Amino acid sequence: MNSVDFTTVVSSMKNQKVDRPNRASVGTLSGHAAGEPFEKSVYRKLKEMYPNRIFKQYEYLNDIYLKHPKHITIEQRYALFKSPTALFLLSRGTEATKKWSPENIFEEKQNDTADILYYHDDFYNIIDVKTRNKSKTAMPPNIISAYKLAEMCALMIDNEEYENINIDYLEIDWIEDGNYLKCVDAHHGNLFKANPETLYINWAAAMQVQFHVCNLDQSWEGTREEWARYYLKVFVTSAEHRCQKMREMYIIPFLKYIKEDTCVDCKQENTQRLD
Amino acid sequence: MNSVDFTTVVSSMKNQKVDRPNRASVGTLSGHAAGEPFEKSVYRKLKEMYPNRIFKQYEYLNDIYLKHPKHITIEQRYALFKSPTALFLLSRGTEATKKWSPENIFEEKQNDTADILYYHDDFYNIIDVKTRNKSKTAMPPNIISAYKLAEMCALMIDNEEYENINIDYLEIDWIEDGNYLKCVDAHHGNLFKANPETLYINWAAAMQVQFHVCNLDQSWEGTREEWARYYLKVFVTSAEHRCQKMREMYIIPFLKYIKEDTCVDCKQENTQRLD
Repeated sequence: MNSVDFTTVVSSMKNQKVDRPNRASVGTLSGHAAGEPFEKSVYRKLKEMYPNRIFKQYEYLNDIYLKHPKHITIEQRYALFKSPTALFLLSRGTEATKKWSPENIFEEKQNDTADILYYHDDFYNIIDVKTRNKSKTAMPPNIISAYKLAEMCALMIDNEEYENINIDYLEIDWIEDGNYLKCVDAHHGNLFKANPETLYINWAAAMQVQFHVCNLDQSWEGTREEWARYYLKVFVTSAEHRCQKMREMYIIPFLKYIKEDTCVDCKQENTQRLD
Repeated sequence: MNSVDFTTVVSSMKNQKVDRPNRASVGTLSGHAAGEPFEKSVYRKLKEMYPNRIFKQYEYLNDIYLKHPKHITIEQRYALFKSPTALFLLSRGTEATKKWSPENIFEEKQNDTADILYYHDDFYNIIDVKTRNKSKTAMPPNIISAYKLAEMCALMIDNEEYENINIDYLEIDWIEDGNYLKCVDAHHGNLFKANPETLYINWAAAMQVQFHVCNLDQSWEGTREEWARYYLKVFVTSAEHRCQKMREMYIIPFLKYIKEDTCVDCKQENTQRLD
């Protein structure tokens, strides 16, 4: 398996300063936008290390479609992906892909899977950068849809694709420092080294897996296939648990209010069931 | 039932201008913060119309606790609410209420139920202001938790509180206008005039009811009790539907991956069930 040298990226980020995107007088910084300069900085570092292998996700798509101008149908364009799993994770929807042309190329999209993509020799490494204001306590951020991960695992198993995809996360911790933001710490974690059991799925927040990269478990020692199957087990169990909780919280407590006044028979039935 | 004159508020808002909260050069405005000056403007108008009956939610809480300095236990403080339903909708949690003192009063909290409260003569009117940049298309905003509404309906029925609570929404549509934001239209809708069937519950977005106030159905002609019971029926049906959909999308398609490799017996059982 190819591999990106994340240790070098992490150490290059530490103590780095970037211009703050607003004036200190405007107030505190928050949200995704605040840390964006650090995401750009990670991209530049990776590009410097691997000039021809690093892309933004939309750059990669534009690149392969531009290189194959005769591939114009949706089937031809999708066939440019060497991997069904990468196709699923990286391609845009059918409509957008049909409409793509050299005059109408893709731009960055907020819900793209990858912030940055390392591609070489049919190996796809998705890299996501999470920036974090260390002077605030914050809930773990949205990482990726748990459902998207489940679909990915099914595709990996169906196509026996265990060696050609990787997903890595970088966390850049920063503080405000006058006219700058300063990186005070950086962390790396690989999704497939995390025991799937330790991943928290927030069903009420668009089924997002949520974690701080610095806390991501890295203890998994099984094979990639074992990871995929175990993730699916964890996902299905979590979905079942969520359904059961929904039943207990959102259905059962309210049944008595909606049946009582319908008819005497229902009333009896309802009383029997609930008492 | 008391009532707030929303027609006057709506017409007073139209064509109003407020200072834009950032410079035009900084770029487009988005998010809740952008329309905040209009929320303040609605509050000022209502305060002008009903000087002693209009509060921010936290102001109301501070007001009743300050007026009853001898009520210091949690039970005493909660007893200051004349209505169990209003207590549920408006009070802060046990810990926060215990810690309240004249030196440690409440401040605004983002997930308070009401932006503005009209209170008079044991009648509580919750007023929520939604501001909307009309030059952008936007998804309907989060209005209120569908579960919170269900709990409210149960309380209304349990306590036969049908006349002392109201929930109203105002929508302020604005556009950028040089150094100002200009209100180009305003709308009012009453929650209990909306047929519960027409309320969309987004289960994946923290169970929020979502709508644009201008599109809120206002055709309900039943009693408040009928509304509460019918809402609960709609809520429970929606929860059941969500569970069923979760089963179909997130459980069944993945079962074959997690059972196959466990044992021969399971494999057979699994094959029978899925083929």
